[in-house]
This record gives sequence, structure tokens and C-alpha cells, in this order.
Amino acid sequence: MRALTLVRYARALLLLALLSFGGQAFAQGDPLPSWNEGAAKQAILKFVETTTMQGSPSFVPPAERIATFDQDGTLWVEHPMYTQIVYCFERVPAVVKAKPELANVEPFKTVMSGNREAIAKLTTNDLVKILAATLTGMSVDDFRAEAKKWLDTARDPRWKRPFTELTYLPMQEVLKYLRANGYRTYIVTGGGQDFVRIYADEVYGIPPEQVVGTAAGTKYGYTKSGKPFLTKEPNLLLNDNNAGKVEGMYLMIGRRPFAAFGNSTGDRQMLEYTKAGTGERLAMLVLHDDAQREYAYGPAQGLPASKVGTFTQALYNEAIKQGWIVISMKNDWKRIFSFEP
Amino acid sequence: MRALTLVRYARALLLLALLSFGGQAFAQGDPLPSWNEGAAKQAILKFVETTTMQGSPSFVPPAERIATFDQDGTLWVEHPMYTQIVYCFERVPAVVKAKPELANVEPFKTVMSGNREAIAKLTTNDLVKILAATLTGMSVDDFRAEAKKWLDTARDPRWKRPFTELTYLPMQEVLKYLRANGYRTYIVTGGGQDFVRIYADEVYGIPPEQVVGTAAGTKYGYTKSGKPFLTKEPNLLLNDNNAGKVEGMYLMIGRRPFAAFGNSTGDRQMLEYTKAGTGERLAMLVLHDDAQREYAYGPAQGLPASKVGTFTQALYNEAIKQGWIVISMKNDWKRIFSFEP
Repeated sequence: MRALTLVRYARALLLLALLSFGGQAFAQGDPLPSWNEGAAKQAILKFVETTTMQGSPSFVPPAERIATFDQDGTLWVEHPMYTQIVYCFERVPAVVKAKPELANVEPFKTVMSGNREAIAKLTTNDLVKILAATLTGMSVDDFRAEAKKWLDTARDPRWKRPFTELTYLPMQEVLKYLRANGYRTYIVTGGGQDFVRIYADEVYGIPPEQVVGTAAGTKYGYTKSGKPFLTKEPNLLLNDNNAGKVEGMYLMIGRRPFAAFGNSTGDRQMLEYTKAGTGERLAMLVLHDDAQREYAYGPAQGLPASKVGTFTQALYNEAIKQGWIVISMKNDWKRIFSFEP
Repeated sequence: MRALTLVRYARALLLLALLSFGGQAFAQGDPLPSWNEGAAKQAILKFVETTTMQGSPSFVPPAERIATFDQDGTLWVEHPMYTQIVYCFERVPAVVKAKPELANVEPFKTVMSGNREAIAKLTTNDLVKILAATLTGMSVDDFRAEAKKWLDTARDPRWKRPFTELTYLPMQEVLKYLRANGYRTYIVTGGGQDFVRIYADEVYGIPPEQVVGTAAGTKYGYTKSGKPFLTKEPNLLLNDNNAGKVEGMYLMIGRRPFAAFGNSTGDRQMLEYTKAGTGERLAMLVLHDDAQREYAYGPAQGLPASKVGTFTQALYNEAIKQGWIVISMKNDWKRIFSFEP
């Protein structure tokens, strides 16, 4: 080969290498195979195309490409109980074992009784006591180790699988599709920030620094041998729900997302704030309307208000008014879980 | 060429392409040209080499490569007064103009008098009132616009330059060198998080989501036309100083840094916590001992304790004991500012 030919040849190979390494952005085929054709799928494809194509009037520079996702009910199953709440209840026996005096104190006595009817009647105030006792007072490392052990062995009551497998395949595809197009994907959850951080990287490909959640304080101290460590404290720093989600994004990211995904009234402000930005913005709401394959608890089910859950008629109306796209699990999702056909 | 040879050839070219594109890590020449040869420079070079070389026992996976930097006194000049405090004082006339009743209320009356002796005697409590009046009560967008305008026009008293030019060239080189080797660089500052975020990207190449600082709350609300916005509130969420720096990193990053840089007692816990991690960790302290080119206020200056500033003898002793590297501005830095030879 002559020198010039060699250079050309090298360039071609380099291009090939970059195309195959640079990746999924250039991947052939449907990036959202678990979605049925329809308005929801089209909205996602169109949003990515118009915000990432050079020369598009809605082009978003890569550094500003932020997409935020609620977790419970948006990325994975939240019914009949948030996974973290299950964890807290199942943690109570260990807490009582460590502090036997709690066995005769409410609400721990009721939880230990195993009486489901009595447990169902516990108040919000009781729940706060249970959260404080099971989530605070230990080092952040001990908390992580305990919660991780539980997540590895606990099974959900319906599918008998690890909770971390109950993620929605169509949403996993959206996460990957956005990332392949330069978006950084964040979780913005009402759940505990450090709880979600334990598994978010493995389960969603979302690293700890991209998980924003409800957060309590920590306290710096030293072991007897002088090694520094942090203890989880009960003071609430960030209630990452409703307006708190927008406040949390300002605190933790300092940027307004271009796309946001939620499923409940707790996500309303995040979607409003996202959509209020300039240029092309995408706001989507997952509607749980599939009693067969998952659950149905949205406003379209003709259920009485008390059973509608957290996707209310008012939220549905705002979605229509503001141009948010409602995702129907039943109609828009071809598959829901990776473990089902 | 036979098929197998072609494959080998393609592999070699691909490797070459990756090496040249993968970057500055392999760049020729000195990555720290503003540093004199010495223990400090060697420590930085060795740290990067041992934590990024494949097969090294101290290899750190790219996702975990976090380096944190204090700002005031570590990345830029903090003497004689923190830039943000200058901003707050200079903002007082505008605040009094908007609320004329403050003109006769302390500490605003004293600030408005321009009497330097009286201003120097203001208490911490007075300062808190000035910070609250100048940093809260407006929308985050208005705050950003006002502070940006000030930063564009204000000049420091000694060099008569924009404050944002008073960054240390050797530290800018460290930031770039770490980033070229896959480290994400964070600012972890006692200064206001949203103040620093205004210029950190332009000045240090550090995006807003990688600035951790002292943070107050915000409150979500709507304009009359229904547009959502955030208002800066006076409640303190995070006092990002001393132990607060470690607590802030846990909250905002959720990872322990592999390298940390500071210059004062406010950075002690961040350096302790960094150094207490497994594997190779780098902890460095900038010592201000150059009265000619910058300022001298460290313990080595033979100054009385009251003049030693925030780099105390106790901190110096801990640095030696814990294996932190002390950077002497006088001896380790060939150049200090980009605008000086």
C-alpha cells in the first residue's frame, strides 16, 4: 500500500471503530421495541430527534441534556406498597431485638404482632416512628449493608421475584435511548435517596450522584480508633415530593430538565417546571390502567375517588391542558416486564 | 492481505485511534507546567498514574474517579475577604433602595455609612442579617441575573481585575489534568452553592451539578400568569464547612472522593474522610506563604495566632501526621496567575 492509501484506509477504519464504539446513537432498528406504535412512543422519538439533531431550532447542547424520572410507579411497581416501606416494616424485628424495650411500645408492638388488620390501621405518625427507627441511628455503611442484604433476598408477594426485577421494560428502553443520545438520566424520587442509590446503578444504570430523593441529615464522627464515619440522623433535609421535587432538582442538579417522567400528583410540579422551560420539553405521565398485567388505579378506571390512588382526575385534566403525554400501560406497552413475554 | 492479517492490522489501527482520541491522558509534555519540581507535583503525577493505569493495584474505575476542591483560598484568592461577602456588602444599597425603611436599621445603616472602621466591627450576627437580606427573598433567576451582572463588572482591590480571573493557574492545571484522566472534578465550598454555580463552568470547567456548597432552601410558587418559579428562602439546608463538607458530599455525590484539595480548617474533615478510604488517596493543602505574589497567612510565617488565618498550626500538624501533602505557594508554584509572567 502506498502511504496515502494507507492513511485513507486508516481513516475509514477509524470511522468504523468510532461508529461501532460511539454507539447506540447510531444503532439500527427500533430503540423502543416494547412500545406499541402510538402517540406516546412518537412523542419520545420526536423529542429526542428534535433536541439532538445539529441545526435543529430546538437543539440542546449535550451538557444541558437532563432527563428526570420519578421511580415508584414510573420506573417500577409501587403497588400495593412502596418497596422501601416494606423494607422498614421487615426491619422492625431486628430493631426490636437490638432494643428489647421497644417490644411493648407502639407502633412497634403492633408491627411485631403480625396482625395485618391492626397494622393497616397505623397512622402516618406511627409510620414516621417506624421510618426513624429503621432508617436512622446507624452508620451509612451499616445501613447500606443491611438494605443491600434485604434487597438481595426479599421477594414481592405477586410475582415472587426480587423487587429490583419489577422494573418496567419500556421505561428501561427510554432510559437507554435517552442516554445513547447524550442525555443524563436522573431519578427524582420521593423515596429515600440513599436507599435508591444502593441499587440504581445496577438496576437502571443510574449512578448515585444522579439520584435525587428524600434525604435526612447525617452526622460526622469518629470510631474509637479515629476513623471518620457518617451516622444517619432523623432530621429531614429534603422532602422530595410535590414542590420538593423542583426544590430538590435546584439543590442537587442546578438545571431544569428537558424531559420528565412521573405517574402521580407527587410529580405534578416537576412536570410543570420542566414544561415551563424554553424550547422543546417533554413531560410524560404513566397511567396504571392494566389490571391484568400490573395494576389499575388511575382516574380512567371508574373507581371511586378513594381508590383512585395518586393519579387523580385533576392530574389527568392538567396533563391534557398542559400538553403532557399520558402513557397508557395497557395500550402503549407491548411488554411490561423483561421476565414476561 | 489475508483475512487474519487484516483483522490484526485493523486492531492495531483501532488501538492507535483510541490512544490518540482517548486523550490528553497520553498527551506529551508536562501537564503541570506552572508547578516547580518537588514533592507536591510528584504526588499529583504519581496519584494519577497509579489510579488510572490498567492493571495497577490501585486502579480506580472511571465511574468512581471523583476529586473535590475547596474554592476560596484553594482555587482562587480568598484574601482579604471572600468574593461572595464583597458581593453581599455591595448589594446593600440596592436592597435599601427597594426597602427604604432599612436605611435607619442596623446593620444596614452602618454599611450605608461607608465608615470602614464601623463596618469592620460588625458582628457575625450582623453579617447573617446582611446575607439574608442580599441573598434571599428573590427568585433564583433574579438572583442569578444580579450576581452575574456584578461579577462581570466588579474588580478586586489589589489586581484591579474581575474576581473570576484571580484563579490559581497551577490549580487550573490540576483540574484539567485530572479531567483528562477521567476524574470528575467537584467544587465543595463553604461559599453559596448557587453563587458559585453561576461562574464555575466558565471559570473552572465545572458544571453546576458538580458544585456542592452552602445551600439555603427554595420555595416553589407561580407568577400571576401561572408560570412556576423558585424563590430563595432563608432556611439553611446545608452548612458546607468542616464536617458539613463530608455530609454535603454524601448528600450531593454519594461517593467518597479519591482526591481532595483544601487550604483551611474548614477542609479538615473532607481531607480526613478522603484519606480514610481504601486504596490510593490524595489529600492536599494549599499553604499561603507568598506575601509577594499573593498573601502569607499560614502558620509557618511566625505570625501570632490571631493572624494565622484559617491554616492553623494544628492543621499543619495533622497534615504531617496523616500524610497530606502541603503545597507551598512560594516554593511549589512557578506561576500563580495566568495574567502574570
